[in-house]
Amino acid sequence: MSKKNLIVGQSGGPTAVINSSLYGVVTEGYAHPEEIGTVYGMVNGIEGFLEGRILDFKEALPGDSLKDLTHTPGAYLGSCRCKLPESLQDPVYPAIFKRFEELNIGWFFYIGGNDSMDTVSKLSRYAAQIGSDIRVIGEPKTIDNDLIHTDHTPGYGSAARYVAETVREIVLDANVYEKKSVTILEIMGRHAGWLTAAGALARKTAGDNPMLIYLPETNFDQDAFLKKVGECLEKNCNVVVCVSEGIHDKNGTFICEYDSSVGTDSFGHKMLAGCGKYLENLVRSKLGVKARSVEFNVSQRCSAAMLSRADQQEAIMAGRFGVNAALAGETGKMVSFIRVEKDGKCAMECGLEDVNEICNEEKPVPAEWITADGTDVSDDFIRYASPLIQGTVEVPLGEDGLPRFVSRK
Amino acid sequence: MSKKNLIVGQSGGPTAVINSSLYGVVTEGYAHPEEIGTVYGMVNGIEGFLEGRILDFKEALPGDSLKDLTHTPGAYLGSCRCKLPESLQDPVYPAIFKRFEELNIGWFFYIGGNDSMDTVSKLSRYAAQIGSDIRVIGEPKTIDNDLIHTDHTPGYGSAARYVAETVREIVLDANVYEKKSVTILEIMGRHAGWLTAAGALARKTAGDNPMLIYLPETNFDQDAFLKKVGECLEKNCNVVVCVSEGIHDKNGTFICEYDSSVGTDSFGHKMLAGCGKYLENLVRSKLGVKARSVEFNVSQRCSAAMLSRADQQEAIMAGRFGVNAALAGETGKMVSFIRVEKDGKCAMECGLEDVNEICNEEKPVPAEWITADGTDVSDDFIRYASPLIQGTVEVPLGEDGLPRFVSRK
Repeated sequence: MSKKNLIVGQSGGPTAVINSSLYGVVTEGYAHPEEIGTVYGMVNGIEGFLEGRILDFKEALPGDSLKDLTHTPGAYLGSCRCKLPESLQDPVYPAIFKRFEELNIGWFFYIGGNDSMDTVSKLSRYAAQIGSDIRVIGEPKTIDNDLIHTDHTPGYGSAARYVAETVREIVLDANVYEKKSVTILEIMGRHAGWLTAAGALARKTAGDNPMLIYLPETNFDQDAFLKKVGECLEKNCNVVVCVSEGIHDKNGTFICEYDSSVGTDSFGHKMLAGCGKYLENLVRSKLGVKARSVEFNVSQRCSAAMLSRADQQEAIMAGRFGVNAALAGETGKMVSFIRVEKDGKCAMECGLEDVNEICNEEKPVPAEWITADGTDVSDDFIRYASPLIQGTVEVPLGEDGLPRFVSRK
Repeated sequence: MSKKNLIVGQSGGPTAVINSSLYGVVTEGYAHPEEIGTVYGMVNGIEGFLEGRILDFKEALPGDSLKDLTHTPGAYLGSCRCKLPESLQDPVYPAIFKRFEELNIGWFFYIGGNDSMDTVSKLSRYAAQIGSDIRVIGEPKTIDNDLIHTDHTPGYGSAARYVAETVREIVLDANVYEKKSVTILEIMGRHAGWLTAAGALARKTAGDNPMLIYLPETNFDQDAFLKKVGECLEKNCNVVVCVSEGIHDKNGTFICEYDSSVGTDSFGHKMLAGCGKYLENLVRSKLGVKARSVEFNVSQRCSAAMLSRADQQEAIMAGRFGVNAALAGETGKMVSFIRVEKDGKCAMECGLEDVNEICNEEKPVPAEWITADGTDVSDDFIRYASPLIQGTVEVPLGEDGLPRFVSRK
């Protein structure tokens, strides 16, 4: 069998461990020198690849510097938001495969979420159509945790740890004054409330702050919300509420749309910002108490200081598993996680799922994990999410005393 | 000499190390059993004290739990925003000293910023007026770093580390796409730009992001800003800008006031929020590029994960130094830091300053540390701030895998 080269790309929004998945793919690529020649990276995903922008990891990250990927946020290779055409007759497909052939690619790994799995699906189907033996494997990634057919996704654990730790810290900050106050925490998640639900992990005892948690899986009623907050203020001087950025009323109107102007991103998704700010103003004006809001924003997906070690290690494991699957002949698959019990503890094993079934689907928080009044999550959620946020990562520091990250030259 | 008791309170906004100062005071109190009896804490500062709310540290935080103060954000004792009357003839003063006498207090320590030093000033002057031998010492605290007569203030180093680390992470996040973008980071600081300036510590090399830094010490011109951002976009696809929440135009109008509604807090301070959001919209509409904004918000002052070890240790040292100063007969003083060179390295020693000169004064970033065009800080600032953010703190985890914090029952 003649040697082939490997290429890996990153796509979609970054997470704290998308570079750990990359590290897993690259190191496993290096571990099979009889079968795998050069390990290439696509710069800015399939979009940059089409412009000829690639790198060779041996040159880009020589020696120990490769390891720094495991704690570097962002997407080392750069990303793109490119959706390939639906028709496999489109000339972009032969263009991509011509490039693959020129580079003698045998294996292609794409690390990303929903939209990236769509790319994996299309490229693997096109390969089958033209009889190419290039293996195409999807490596999951999304802080939203909304991919189906997997216990969870790499990136979620660290984002959930960020949310849990930060909520716990802000609860302490909110408790400082003896004056009735409401703090609204706006957490990422357009359609799935997984990350907002992680606010529940911040509680030390039942009834603790955050006293209320609202996910986009249920309809949000402003009057019921105000009533509930009022009841909480009777029990606790300082009330902390977690809300997903994507909460909406029963007609599907986003709560943030009750506020000022709303834009759209390049995919046509509505740009959500401000439901926290809107609810802050609502609480202040209707309940007459001190109110503030905090939008957690991008630190949720790029905090190295709050990396979950479990998440980091799983991302590396998934990266490696994907390479071995491709070497074993698999293609058109996404690496998944399967929850098992090992020595009485929760552990994760990797599996493979048909990428065609996964792309363009979304997994919401199950209805049975949300309380009947839609203001909290159940203990089932806590049991599910707790193992995913365990462990911290010691990030090496540079000469300036700040975390040592790697970036492309 | 008969034993007297010690009491300590916290006041004003919390910082990541206000509880480390408290730890310093309490442990040093314990270290002098011949002179100091019980070590009390005021709950919710002088306001709670007047309502009789105190605690005994031996009961509240027995054994090793006391040490957990050194990584617990918020204000363990609770805080208040209470400004004592200007006239020392006001009946509140005899009321406070009657309580002091009942509790056999010999030493009172107040950990806080400007407004708290005002309390220290008034109580020490009242003590002198009535011939009381109660020693009153101020322990500095503010993330704003705006107290005069001290090299810096406890709380600033950790907040500055949070800013530097978070800016570095967000720069990586912003670099992910190959599409012109501007990211505006809004950082705390109403009148003093110390914290915003810490964004400069995130740079790895000159010219790196954050490419522009705007402090409230200079007037902000929107046209000049847009021109500058445009120039930066020629050099770098993704431009990151740090702005202080308190930036204002040459007439003193806050930039955020160009936006929607603005409230005031209980001190009559204008409540600033939104200059980041305003500039995001300005850039998008005037320059036609992708723009987003991130408001750093309260995590700047309550992040345990990004504690500066230097800051934590200095806060403990200042707490201890204050107790020894009081035991030596000092009163009406604030503990200060003096920068010295030790073995060729920067080190801090504690000193004492007349609290009457400090309260109600503010220290801005020196004009000579701001570049002529007001869009950056100089290397002098970097040399000043770098030692203050050094070192990380390993925060012990609880059974749930999240940081183990202490709070009042």
